[in-house]
Amino acid sequence: MGAPLAILGGTGKQGRGLALRFAAAGRSVVVGSRDPDKARRIASELNAELGSSHVRGTSNDEAAGIAAIVFSTLPHAGHLETVRDLKNALSGKLLVTATIRWPPEPDGSPSAAEELDELLAGSARVAAAFQTVSARSLLKPGSGDDQDVLVFAEAEATRREALAVVAETGLRPVEAGPLRGARIAEALTGLLLGINKIYGVKSAGVRITGLPAEER
Amino acid sequence: MGAPLAILGGTGKQGRGLALRFAAAGRSVVVGSRDPDKARRIASELNAELGSSHVRGTSNDEAAGIAAIVFSTLPHAGHLETVRDLKNALSGKLLVTATIRWPPEPDGSPSAAEELDELLAGSARVAAAFQTVSARSLLKPGSGDDQDVLVFAEAEATRREALAVVAETGLRPVEAGPLRGARIAEALTGLLLGINKIYGVKSAGVRITGLPAEER
Repeated sequence: MGAPLAILGGTGKQGRGLALRFAAAGRSVVVGSRDPDKARRIASELNAELGSSHVRGTSNDEAAGIAAIVFSTLPHAGHLETVRDLKNALSGKLLVTATIRWPPEPDGSPSAAEELDELLAGSARVAAAFQTVSARSLLKPGSGDDQDVLVFAEAEATRREALAVVAETGLRPVEAGPLRGARIAEALTGLLLGINKIYGVKSAGVRITGLPAEER
Repeated sequence: MGAPLAILGGTGKQGRGLALRFAAAGRSVVVGSRDPDKARRIASELNAELGSSHVRGTSNDEAAGIAAIVFSTLPHAGHLETVRDLKNALSGKLLVTATIRWPPEPDGSPSAAEELDELLAGSARVAAAFQTVSARSLLKPGSGDDQDVLVFAEAEATRREALAVVAETGLRPVEAGPLRGARIAEALTGLLLGINKIYGVKSAGVRITGLPAEER
């Protein structure tokens, strides 16, 4: 079983989807929430679904402290305040955020990931991933697995570290450059929601074509 | 042979790629340029490559006048001035622009397509397509054909009209909503250039996953 991985704000659909995927891949997953009881309930549900005991629930604070790799699926409103309180617990860790600004308009504002990176400068290594991936497809392993996960981080070493973890979900990670690019991933999410509506589907995603075959 | 289709600024790589794809599909293609001699030379080269006589070259003005469907691969700098001069010739026509702002930063500015739409309001029907598709993959029919073409226009009827034409290139068109979304397609182009660099490839593209099978 891999080293434990935490998911902040992990009781929402995106968090549950990530927990399910990572636990199915054999990771020990700690679901964090500001409501630890809810986190424990969600963990039990996920374990029941998986027929295993890979998932447990606790507070965001404890979750951040336990794991060396921390995902965030916190909603944009308040994500900085929550993470500010966890700054010490996150020190020296890899923080991968799936949070997107809302509405995800390409207006020149920093992405949620850039905001986090500024807040945690010199403390955690910040990456962005899963912005364009619907919770619905994460919650059904094997479904939507032809879509990619765009991975952003300032340092190449951080991107590589995030790529390796993301690959455990069964979706192909694509190294997409510095954090600034997360603005485009956020905007793409808005576009995908529009495409969902036009085609009457619910989980449109994105795949990058033209990459070397060995990266597929 | 389908009704003639014009390509403004068609002597560049993107224009030649579109001309090649449409002519290979049996369309009569008129390559327009501010330098009609260059357009004629490019047309001869394309005809030689295709072993047919589907392509001819002329001025942008004459090209816009001849065809009912007009593509633009004009560079962003000066595209409005060129199209302003063609306003009468374009009246009542479908104008599909592949032009992108440069640099394609998601900064809240209107897309090149929105600028054109404002200029041609009440005159031509404006759509945006091929922003994320590299000239290199257009120039090699059969290569990169797993990528999609995101198609934007204000009116659904215009989008449908553009989708039908785009499909002739062998790439799948995806109806992606109002013209405003072309800002995201432009930004995506910048992201794809970064991904090209990271992976050492030259024609990364985008495919939308999760659409109904019959739309593939």
